[in-house]
Amino acid sequence: MFQEATYQQRRTKLKNDIKKGIILLLGNEESSMNYKDNLYPFRQDSSFLYFTGLNRPGLALLIDPEQGTEILFGDELTVEDIVWMGPQTPLRDEAAQAGLLTVQPSKALDAAIQKIQSGKRALHFLPPYRPETALKISAYLQLPTTAIAAQASVPLIKAIVAQRSVKSAEEVAEITKAVNTTAAMQLAAMQQARAGITEAALAGILQGLAVSAGGNLSFPTILTVNGQYLHNHYSDSILQPGQTVLCDCGAATAMQYAGDMTRTFPVDQQFSTRQKEIYNIVLHSYQQAVAALKPGRLFKDIHLLACAALTEGLQQIGLMKGDIQESVAAGAHTLFFPCGLGHMLGLDTHDMENLGEAYVGYTDNLKQSTEFGLKSLRLGRTLEAGFVVTVEPGLYFTPQLIDAWKQEKKLASFINYDKLEAYRQAGGTRIEEDFLITPDGYQLLGDPLPITAEGIETIRQAI
Amino acid sequence: MFQEATYQQRRTKLKNDIKKGIILLLGNEESSMNYKDNLYPFRQDSSFLYFTGLNRPGLALLIDPEQGTEILFGDELTVEDIVWMGPQTPLRDEAAQAGLLTVQPSKALDAAIQKIQSGKRALHFLPPYRPETALKISAYLQLPTTAIAAQASVPLIKAIVAQRSVKSAEEVAEITKAVNTTAAMQLAAMQQARAGITEAALAGILQGLAVSAGGNLSFPTILTVNGQYLHNHYSDSILQPGQTVLCDCGAATAMQYAGDMTRTFPVDQQFSTRQKEIYNIVLHSYQQAVAALKPGRLFKDIHLLACAALTEGLQQIGLMKGDIQESVAAGAHTLFFPCGLGHMLGLDTHDMENLGEAYVGYTDNLKQSTEFGLKSLRLGRTLEAGFVVTVEPGLYFTPQLIDAWKQEKKLASFINYDKLEAYRQAGGTRIEEDFLITPDGYQLLGDPLPITAEGIETIRQAI
Repeated sequence: MFQEATYQQRRTKLKNDIKKGIILLLGNEESSMNYKDNLYPFRQDSSFLYFTGLNRPGLALLIDPEQGTEILFGDELTVEDIVWMGPQTPLRDEAAQAGLLTVQPSKALDAAIQKIQSGKRALHFLPPYRPETALKISAYLQLPTTAIAAQASVPLIKAIVAQRSVKSAEEVAEITKAVNTTAAMQLAAMQQARAGITEAALAGILQGLAVSAGGNLSFPTILTVNGQYLHNHYSDSILQPGQTVLCDCGAATAMQYAGDMTRTFPVDQQFSTRQKEIYNIVLHSYQQAVAALKPGRLFKDIHLLACAALTEGLQQIGLMKGDIQESVAAGAHTLFFPCGLGHMLGLDTHDMENLGEAYVGYTDNLKQSTEFGLKSLRLGRTLEAGFVVTVEPGLYFTPQLIDAWKQEKKLASFINYDKLEAYRQAGGTRIEEDFLITPDGYQLLGDPLPITAEGIETIRQAI
Repeated sequence: MFQEATYQQRRTKLKNDIKKGIILLLGNEESSMNYKDNLYPFRQDSSFLYFTGLNRPGLALLIDPEQGTEILFGDELTVEDIVWMGPQTPLRDEAAQAGLLTVQPSKALDAAIQKIQSGKRALHFLPPYRPETALKISAYLQLPTTAIAAQASVPLIKAIVAQRSVKSAEEVAEITKAVNTTAAMQLAAMQQARAGITEAALAGILQGLAVSAGGNLSFPTILTVNGQYLHNHYSDSILQPGQTVLCDCGAATAMQYAGDMTRTFPVDQQFSTRQKEIYNIVLHSYQQAVAALKPGRLFKDIHLLACAALTEGLQQIGLMKGDIQESVAAGAHTLFFPCGLGHMLGLDTHDMENLGEAYVGYTDNLKQSTEFGLKSLRLGRTLEAGFVVTVEPGLYFTPQLIDAWKQEKKLASFINYDKLEAYRQAGGTRIEEDFLITPDGYQLLGDPLPITAEGIETIRQAI
């Protein structure tokens, strides 16, 4: 946990922003795997964690901005619990460390909410992403679970997004810790990959490192020789000479702050000429994008800058043609880069994603595009000092997409479909690092990990 | 997946056992961690997996025993899915490999169930352990989610328990694979433990091995220097010289069959005299229990045999006294062994636990005890050839429990409370292996791993 004052200040700001009605923040419950008592690792709701620091299941916080009161609902362990689980800090003591001095048993929450409802005061809550949370709210509001999301409080979402978007120095330190563990995972992948082992064998080593560091994975590891499929995770596929491995992974610290990095490296000791050619296009795009990070810049514009750099590189190797700006405007690069340049990073890997990209990555004045490619850009808005963002351009050669576009001669004035045939099996290449936006520009988070093709080859050759 | 015939035979037997009404088996959905698209590793429902072999989210199976029909409900990937996820075996083809030839889209299930309801035919379903499953059944039956469990089908539960309790040779082979990965995890723990690292650091290595082997953990690892707290997992506690580590962990194979083993070992290269004294009592109890495994025996009796052996050992070191059988009957040993000797093992670590211990571990004629100690014995019934069970006696010195008993002089005619003071910090010691009940007796599953105090010390000294 951070200091008591941190949580108090966050809640004070929230009260000042919301002013009217009652704020209900629901913590997460345990999640069952294959029977009730066989549990997934507990993951607290990030906004609940942000305002309370309390990382245990079954809690709820009611904040009354008008009266300034805060009530935490949750249950103390019984003596029998302690016999089975060992001594734990009493909830009341841990709550006090976050400045929460009023603790009531869980069962009192229902009556408290009924009272609010009967007083006709607005209840501000966040959109649920777990069914048990939806069920709780459904019971409180007497609405079907499917109707809950639409009733979530936009003022509450906006107020929380405004706070969580700008990271404090202590948050940046935690994210940096996560990034350093993530870098160690990436290094292990580059050092321990070899022809003949499975993707899963390598992914397991990385997961072990995240857990050993005291936290867990921040998201399911992507570690695949088929990096062109963006939602591919890992499988029992055996690494083969001549392939590249795309590894996109992240550690979360015990406090749940996330790291998120990607490297693409050869199964052999060196990239092939074609692999390096593609790698260097992605690296150039990455460098252009990073150099543009600065408060006041639209991240959408930086994304388009990265797209232009990718287009330029693809033109140099003969896969694309035509005016670069026209090509980017037409979205020709989306055949190779159908996704976005990056996203916010914090307590969530896609930070605050459950609060809605419309609020996190966009604003009332800048709406998310619906076009292929740009619709997948999670972050478009103007950067501010204190934002932490990922930069992760890539080139993906997806046979199914190439075939579909080629068949309809889509944007054929920008794409050399004939030449592209030779690249059908070129797979996926991505490079990703995490950055703090500073008043002057940006700061790479974590200790630097080799990122050039040559730097990666040096690691591969040292094994 | 096993062969098509395996799944067909299982379903045929189920139809013969149920005969009337309609059987609904619901597969599991994805579970969200901290936002909708950040997912826990997918875990299929074990009974659904048992009857279909299909290990993907969002499926349901309707079986009509009267008409002999089987309809699988689920959706094929779209072309866009394939662009993002890569080529996958079509659901229709994978279903056919399990002998399921009729596949309908998910959205057709609702109408199919309405038709059953309007025909007044009974709908047999299993008790849900995930909220989204309860929500689905709630919608089908127009009942509140809290009322669902009571409507679960006892005939279906009993029929499934009867089948899943007796493991086929191919299932035993899968469990053996899981046990061998588990043994490798145990060996890694014994080889890599050292003073100065955290419990989590060691637990991470083990988790990595389970994932690397192509599956995952079968349950959250217990790896702790405070093994007396039975539900303690692992923490950032640093291993100290003089302590013992209790490690209870299991791998699940890609098909989800589970292993479950425990070793207790010293942080030092050798057990202390007192640690070895306790270890050997547990080992003796373990050996007595294992020797008694045989079809026709009540597992409850074997549990009591193990309890008698523990009592005998505790008498020899002066902590207990009196007639052994009377002491066991009075439950005096539960101060040191408040739990059960073992449980069924299969697709679940506590196999079929969600179906209810009353059906899995007990029978209409043998009910589970409500006494402290025996109430925690998950398995009491008569062993049959084909059962796979764990044997896991232990001795736990829990200061809070010792104090509570001592204060009320509980069973003081059997316990030397004064002498016990010296053992307050003796922690927890458990030994656990997995066994197949054979027609003649038992078979240890997996390649043997050192289990004597001396065998463990040899491993610790070789590092």
